[in-house]
Amino acid sequence: MSPFRASAGITKDWEHFGFEVADGVATVTLNRPDKLNALTFDVYADLRDLVTELPHRGDARVLVLRGEGRGFCSGGDVEEIIGELQSMAPKELLEFTRMTGATVKAIRECPLPVIASINGIAAGAGSVLALASDFRLLGEKAAFAFLFTKVGLAGADMGSAYLLPRIVGLGRATELLMLGDKIKAERAERLGLGTLVEDLPAATDELAKRLASGPALAYSATKVLLTRELDMDLGASIELEAITQALLMKSDDHQEFYNAWTAGREPRWSGR
Amino acid sequence: MSPFRASAGITKDWEHFGFEVADGVATVTLNRPDKLNALTFDVYADLRDLVTELPHRGDARVLVLRGEGRGFCSGGDVEEIIGELQSMAPKELLEFTRMTGATVKAIRECPLPVIASINGIAAGAGSVLALASDFRLLGEKAAFAFLFTKVGLAGADMGSAYLLPRIVGLGRATELLMLGDKIKAERAERLGLGTLVEDLPAATDELAKRLASGPALAYSATKVLLTRELDMDLGASIELEAITQALLMKSDDHQEFYNAWTAGREPRWSGR
Amino acid sequence: MSPFRASAGITKDWEHFGFEVADGVATVTLNRPDKLNALTFDVYADLRDLVTELPHRGDARVLVLRGEGRGFCSGGDVEEIIGELQSMAPKELLEFTRMTGATVKAIRECPLPVIASINGIAAGAGSVLALASDFRLLGEKAAFAFLFTKVGLAGADMGSAYLLPRIVGLGRATELLMLGDKIKAERAERLGLGTLVEDLPAATDELAKRLASGPALAYSATKVLLTRELDMDLGASIELEAITQALLMKSDDHQEFYNAWTAGREPRWSGR
Repeated sequence: MSPFRASAGITKDWEHFGFEVADGVATVTLNRPDKLNALTFDVYADLRDLVTELPHRGDARVLVLRGEGRGFCSGGDVEEIIGELQSMAPKELLEFTRMTGATVKAIRECPLPVIASINGIAAGAGSVLALASDFRLLGEKAAFAFLFTKVGLAGADMGSAYLLPRIVGLGRATELLMLGDKIKAERAERLGLGTLVEDLPAATDELAKRLASGPALAYSATKVLLTRELDMDLGASIELEAITQALLMKSDDHQEFYNAWTAGREPRWSGR
Repeated sequence: MSPFRASAGITKDWEHFGFEVADGVATVTLNRPDKLNALTFDVYADLRDLVTELPHRGDARVLVLRGEGRGFCSGGDVEEIIGELQSMAPKELLEFTRMTGATVKAIRECPLPVIASINGIAAGAGSVLALASDFRLLGEKAAFAFLFTKVGLAGADMGSAYLLPRIVGLGRATELLMLGDKIKAERAERLGLGTLVEDLPAATDELAKRLASGPALAYSATKVLLTRELDMDLGASIELEAITQALLMKSDDHQEFYNAWTAGREPRWSGR
Repeated sequence: MSPFRASAGITKDWEHFGFEVADGVATVTLNRPDKLNALTFDVYADLRDLVTELPHRGDARVLVLRGEGRGFCSGGDVEEIIGELQSMAPKELLEFTRMTGATVKAIRECPLPVIASINGIAAGAGSVLALASDFRLLGEKAAFAFLFTKVGLAGADMGSAYLLPRIVGLGRATELLMLGDKIKAERAERLGLGTLVEDLPAATDELAKRLASGPALAYSATKVLLTRELDMDLGASIELEAITQALLMKSDDHQEFYNAWTAGREPRWSGR
């Protein structure tokens, strides 16, 4: 556990999705397969809290998001979420939309790399969880549907109108968010929205292991700076990178690289 | 008409282009086909004013920009604009360049989606009007030419150096704006600069009708947030989306979606 | 020489790379071919200083960066740089990383267009020098490797985490910077990371001559505004473009365009 965790404990059980950590790889499995893993209020809350807590545990270096069954995540459950929203007052609606946004913000600000392993449909909020991830691995049946306007809501949800233009450009983002039509895996790959792989479980496993067993501090710094520099100017970004890199040059892993190189062997990364 | 229009009337006649509104679709037709719809001072002024006024009319939910004849818009007329500029003083030149920029700013800030229906060449200022639009539908003879440097001017004109990198990335935007060479429809499609369609009039009509008859408030919010969040950071964007979506959850159209879904019928959008 | 150079002289000899200026084309040739043109402390310092001084010389309108032999630039030399870093204190490390970042900042802020002529591997710092350039021409053996994490450092180096997402989008930039794997020329072209050409020396020569003999002030303004507007909002960008274009409308080259057009002849650009 992190030395910088004080009174708050580490959550024992995540009740609203499957969760396990093995060999540095934390895996969240959305597990309502009969509903294509539609989200409930509790899944959102648990995701937000888990992602915030995860770096404090000390046993995880990468997070994998995956779905059980045919789908990845079909978004907010029409009955359990949309049905409930109908009778809510503005104050409660805003609490809900802030929670969903906080989940995305937590994923982007999480210092661990996040892999979305997309086996099937990623729709609505499910598509934005995918956008918030660092890697989107796409099985052959993976698909995105930013279907918000189809339920009468803004295509801008949980940060989608911030993230998508920065991933696929403003023109295509406008088309995808405004119309909400389905994008299949091949087109998603062409647009830069994900990486199409042949064997999704194997590719997910391989990438997760690579990230977990490699120079984790270097990976983490890369992710954090990619996130922050989207909102920084050139001069400040270069200064941030200079300071970060000077720190990393004092890391065990950088020294290990040099020692291994000098000795003509493979480096043994400690992640520090 | 909007209840928030006070003393200023609604312009009766737009003298410098064709204009009509039918079934929620406003159409501007640039109509100097013998000049490939080159712009004059008056066309710019009318475009700027129309786009600002359009949301106040109350009868339009989408704007289509199109060109009569072979071209979409060949940019500023060499005689009627460039010729006139030669004798202008800095004060007048700046008034002119501010007007052209104000036209693009008005299109980006217009709460209605804008479709550029690009039948032929979109050159110079014509190419930037296309960039400012939300959708760029490309007929087989559509082409872009950001030809500013070829007339000795900066490739940065009317916001092109802001918009193009955010649509196709900095590398390709540098090539296109610095060199000013022609980009044909197929390459434009590959770069994400537009959507190639088989039958341009039919595809334009279909998209315009879809936007005009659908959940217009949802489309409008999507466009406005896409525009604004290009200039906002992650945290502020997520907050803006949370507040916007909470408001939209109180809209008639969102309620209508839920009612229709519950009843097992198609939603009937009111656009409110 | 620029009238705005006062006490500081123009450097006579650049000792750490080849340098020549001919017909407005300045060429830097990284010339440690046996090390695939790996960088040393001195090459960085000279590059930073040259790029800052270049616009003051008055004889160069475009800068070409190229590598001698098989490689473009393999990044910081493992012995001469990484070896030395091992024993440095934080203060010196920061001085080093700030120097490398200052080199990239100088290239981006240089008012002359910069062409990276990439014949072979562009790795580590070499890949970021390529990113900082305005044009990346790729020979068939060109390749990129943002290999920082492979030496235990952050993939964010010298501005890479600022530049790459703005060139290829956040998703692909995350993959490339986090994993550091090699990207060959064809994939680089598809991603918008460069332009694949058949005959690299000829294509480099042609582009450099075109930029050097064309409307140089227009090219320069285009580059400067592309750089600055990445960090500006829509309204400010449009204002900057309006003011810049009004100035350019008073330039000799714009007048020359109009005169040539009126006379039915080709313009003779002076670059003013």
